[in-house]
Amino acid sequence: MSSEEQGYFTEDNSAEVVISRNADAKDARVAEVMGAITRHLHAAVKEIEPTQEEWFEAIQFLTKVGHASDDWRQEFILLSDSLGVSMLVDAINNRKPSGASESTVLGPFHVADAPELPMGSDICLDQKGEPMLVKGRIVGIDGAPISGAKIDVWQANDEGFYDVQQKGLQPDFNLRGVFRTGDDGTYHFKGVKPKCYPIPDDGPVGKLLETLGRHPFRPAHLHYILEADGFETLITHIFDPDDPYIHTDAVFGVKESLLAKFKRVEDPEDIAEAGFDGPFFEVVHDFVLAPTS
Amino acid sequence: MSSEEQGYFTEDNSAEVVISRNADAKDARVAEVMGAITRHLHAAVKEIEPTQEEWFEAIQFLTKVGHASDDWRQEFILLSDSLGVSMLVDAINNRKPSGASESTVLGPFHVADAPELPMGSDICLDQKGEPMLVKGRIVGIDGAPISGAKIDVWQANDEGFYDVQQKGLQPDFNLRGVFRTGDDGTYHFKGVKPKCYPIPDDGPVGKLLETLGRHPFRPAHLHYILEADGFETLITHIFDPDDPYIHTDAVFGVKESLLAKFKRVEDPEDIAEAGFDGPFFEVVHDFVLAPTS
Repeated sequence: MSSEEQGYFTEDNSAEVVISRNADAKDARVAEVMGAITRHLHAAVKEIEPTQEEWFEAIQFLTKVGHASDDWRQEFILLSDSLGVSMLVDAINNRKPSGASESTVLGPFHVADAPELPMGSDICLDQKGEPMLVKGRIVGIDGAPISGAKIDVWQANDEGFYDVQQKGLQPDFNLRGVFRTGDDGTYHFKGVKPKCYPIPDDGPVGKLLETLGRHPFRPAHLHYILEADGFETLITHIFDPDDPYIHTDAVFGVKESLLAKFKRVEDPEDIAEAGFDGPFFEVVHDFVLAPTS
Repeated sequence: MSSEEQGYFTEDNSAEVVISRNADAKDARVAEVMGAITRHLHAAVKEIEPTQEEWFEAIQFLTKVGHASDDWRQEFILLSDSLGVSMLVDAINNRKPSGASESTVLGPFHVADAPELPMGSDICLDQKGEPMLVKGRIVGIDGAPISGAKIDVWQANDEGFYDVQQKGLQPDFNLRGVFRTGDDGTYHFKGVKPKCYPIPDDGPVGKLLETLGRHPFRPAHLHYILEADGFETLITHIFDPDDPYIHTDAVFGVKESLLAKFKRVEDPEDIAEAGFDGPFFEVVHDFVLAPTS
């Protein structure tokens, strides 16, 4: 329908009138997306019935989120994360076949050029924190081991900070490493037991979370990117199920299948075999990669 | 349901999980609003199924809108205007009883301290543009004249600019005036025939409109705020129905009831009676105010 046939804007036909203006859009996908956004946005406004003052508060909030964003801090991504939008987009783009390991959000702390290390290396370069051994297998949906799989792992230290957040305080590439599986598909490396940490909560998103009675914490986790020829790349975490925030991750990244047991090992023989000086945490977790389609 | 009972976030239960986190909100209205926003936002994402790249484009767009906003320019209001949200909020907050004049958006160019002028004054201080006489009555729903009604009127000049946009080029308070009705409820004043003009389109909202194949123009109009004791304040425009953009106002402000005929008067007797030197435009428009409830 043309704009003229559509008639003037009313409370009833509001979304239809706005969308009718996109009839000559130069980009069909943008018009489709803006059509859906317009419909859902108008439905939300009609349900909320904001006062003029509330509408202006929303304008001011979005403006503050924009002003809090720069090359180093992305408050709109924090907002997307905090409202579950980032995880929803991740879920939509990573529907895995039955049996394959599930994905979760990448997060802002991956670095592209972490060093490739010999299997079994300790990624903790400053000896701080409780020692941890992580091991398992990288397999296909058929259970067959994947040889030559690249395991890119990174984690926060025992204070909840990544190396890039503490330049000068942590060694470069602390708690990061890239490993490659052999023919048996197994992997193992050493690190430190991760801690929960808050997302940056000193901006407008942090204030919103506080008003909503929400904490800003992410439960303790390890990040992974797993790549292998013939398989879909998997971006995921494993989580400590005993973390106090495991049911309330501020960014909704936790999935049942990503829970990994962090088992405290105290037996002297096991300690000696693993090459530690004292008790350590052992995490056994297998990853199942989906074939490329 | 508590966060633990709700279970982990999935594509299916995404909005419910996010909303369950607001159980201990400090502000019930904010929680209600954010609940509705979360539901509609997740519904939009599920319908759109954005790629990760499209999601990031949306993040970047919102960031640019924030960065384009400062004390002088409010790009988020422009976005709200351009998507019909501002008019929808106006409609929701100004449901008028049958027979009362309808409202439309205030716009950013009202100034609070325009001078009160004798009835009949010419608000055009620089003699530029085509002369115009505007007249009519301010009445209640019962048709009775409203005495002492305050008429605050402002308009763009014949080039489409308000005085505040052309400081130094237009006299201060050009094309602004405040009038007060007498016992008969009538008003009349002189101005210039307004022109259509674009909303600021050199920012991210302008680019979006261009991609959507939309122009940035508002059809020619006069702004009014009408106030009288015992009546609801009315913020509205009247529009030129012959304007090329009358069916496609970039901010969706036009309503059927706000169309006013701009009649060209050429009869020498009428010209002399109105006190002009040559042909002028005559606009006759009555306003009906709703009683305060």
